[in-house]
Amino acid sequence: MPAPTDHELFSLGDVVLQHGATLRDAKLAYKTYGTLNAEKTNAIVYPTWYSGRHSDNEWLIGTDKALNPDEWFIIVPNMLGNGLSSSPSNTPPPYDRARFPNVTFYDQVECQHRLVTEQFGIETLALVTGWSMGAGQTYQWAVSHPEMVQRAAPFCGSSVTSPHNQVFLESITATLRADAAFAGGWYRDDAWPTTGLRAFARVYAGWGFSQAFYWQEEWRKLGASSLEDFLIAFWEGFWLDERDPNNLLAMAWTWCHGDVGRTPGFDGDTVAALASIRCPVLAMPAEKDLYFPPEDEQWAAQHVPRGEVRVIPGIWGHFAGGGMNPDDTAFIDQGIRDVLAMDP
Amino acid sequence: MPAPTDHELFSLGDVVLQHGATLRDAKLAYKTYGTLNAEKTNAIVYPTWYSGRHSDNEWLIGTDKALNPDEWFIIVPNMLGNGLSSSPSNTPPPYDRARFPNVTFYDQVECQHRLVTEQFGIETLALVTGWSMGAGQTYQWAVSHPEMVQRAAPFCGSSVTSPHNQVFLESITATLRADAAFAGGWYRDDAWPTTGLRAFARVYAGWGFSQAFYWQEEWRKLGASSLEDFLIAFWEGFWLDERDPNNLLAMAWTWCHGDVGRTPGFDGDTVAALASIRCPVLAMPAEKDLYFPPEDEQWAAQHVPRGEVRVIPGIWGHFAGGGMNPDDTAFIDQGIRDVLAMDP
Repeated sequence: MPAPTDHELFSLGDVVLQHGATLRDAKLAYKTYGTLNAEKTNAIVYPTWYSGRHSDNEWLIGTDKALNPDEWFIIVPNMLGNGLSSSPSNTPPPYDRARFPNVTFYDQVECQHRLVTEQFGIETLALVTGWSMGAGQTYQWAVSHPEMVQRAAPFCGSSVTSPHNQVFLESITATLRADAAFAGGWYRDDAWPTTGLRAFARVYAGWGFSQAFYWQEEWRKLGASSLEDFLIAFWEGFWLDERDPNNLLAMAWTWCHGDVGRTPGFDGDTVAALASIRCPVLAMPAEKDLYFPPEDEQWAAQHVPRGEVRVIPGIWGHFAGGGMNPDDTAFIDQGIRDVLAMDP
Repeated sequence: MPAPTDHELFSLGDVVLQHGATLRDAKLAYKTYGTLNAEKTNAIVYPTWYSGRHSDNEWLIGTDKALNPDEWFIIVPNMLGNGLSSSPSNTPPPYDRARFPNVTFYDQVECQHRLVTEQFGIETLALVTGWSMGAGQTYQWAVSHPEMVQRAAPFCGSSVTSPHNQVFLESITATLRADAAFAGGWYRDDAWPTTGLRAFARVYAGWGFSQAFYWQEEWRKLGASSLEDFLIAFWEGFWLDERDPNNLLAMAWTWCHGDVGRTPGFDGDTVAALASIRCPVLAMPAEKDLYFPPEDEQWAAQHVPRGEVRVIPGIWGHFAGGGMNPDDTAFIDQGIRDVLAMDP
């Protein structure tokens, strides 16, 4: 499906990034759900995931859900790099395409913080939550702005990208770059590196769901007629769907360098950053997630004063958090309901 | 290091393969360790693994090991496709390179059976054992020749390649093919698809060892000075070391299509094939193996009348069976010692 257009753009002006570049005239694309109350106490931030757009988060929002827009004002900011906010694909020269600067989770959250405070005048967030890289942004919010974040519910993600997860990211990015059509990021519009993207998709396929998911042919529930059909229709289809290769590499850089310890003031001390979080954090990793295994979250929770881990049971692996499996969605929804009932 | 040359060649003549092609004037490269006794009762077959050569199996052979050449006559046949036996890289036209025919595990074992019976006049095998694809050949021996195989000890492999494992194989082969220099298998000697091989290596890196292996920086035990050094020196070095891309694809085809149920007479019935095995089978999967998880072996053992599973504990994942970690090697060696003590 085409990228959505039902969003607003917040003008960030010139953003000086953590690694030194200035992203000039930067834009943050976002969409809101529900109404901000007069006291401005009902706001929730729900960031996007790797290549996801605000519309991809909507499965967890609804009047029958914990994220009920009749009750909460839910802001979904699109990550820088996702093609809607400032990204390689939409930034003018000289920071365009392969020259797009390195953006950290810290940078992402600073931009979102400006949207929340400058555009809406919000001073507290009842909750920050998100899947995968959205979970990474959730942790970053809790570390960067402990004065604002009242609760956090990261699912299928981590506070620091593990070395194995970095190897996974190396694998998909090396695969994409192996296509000569990629041309160092200067691919032509009429010579898109689709071979590399299709290989990227096949690499991702092994990681996105668990061994047992494939053994039990759970892909039938997603409408696939055979394993090969699943690899083409779901996986290749997903990454060929207006996913700009430079955007994918920019977001992979952010992900690969995820670490709340790199927040200014913590000097690389991840444990100290986690220990500084004031709010309750309910982390929900998936039992069979192959690149964000529950061990990552169990480790982090030891250091978060009010940290708790609830493992999503089952065989959907990382995509337990993707909104496609009703049991997993119900588990996550209940977790968010429970964390919203906690004292800030 | 260069491919070894300390092997013998057994002339197979014209081999009619299971999928219909005839591999003419085929050769099986092998090496033996120890001396065949007069009764010909002390023979062991120990097949190679994906891209491995006979010399890569030697870590498990020694006078201090269960596979003691003072006691046993150990035959290590090189798989068709590994570059020493008939392979894409050494077969003359018209079945050369990208035209090398599809070879099944059944075919591999039939060629090995001819070596064992015709060259040595052996009628019983005290043991068949092997790592990874060597485990697949071990299962195939027990199904194809129950009258000969007295004991089997497959480690870190399976009797049927799981769908998830097939997705992993799709990922590495699609990555290799994404390099335009691969040219459909007709790459030039002066334009080797090294970019594709290096990406292939990075994809493999995430699967070969467990998440915890990377978290705990176990790669330091293999002489790497950093994670990136491990990816280059160990992984890229491994696949650039005289590993012919067409050979890799040929062996991946064999692996991807592994299934003892495809043995003639079983008509695709994997369970019936497993149930036909007469000898004791001690399967040793590794606890954290990401592409041959212990569940594969636990499933198979239910159907093997004398099947037993012992899980290799620890965090080395698939490479628990690669002979690089002393604890894992000791575990496997003890398993082989125990299975050799069992009644046939």
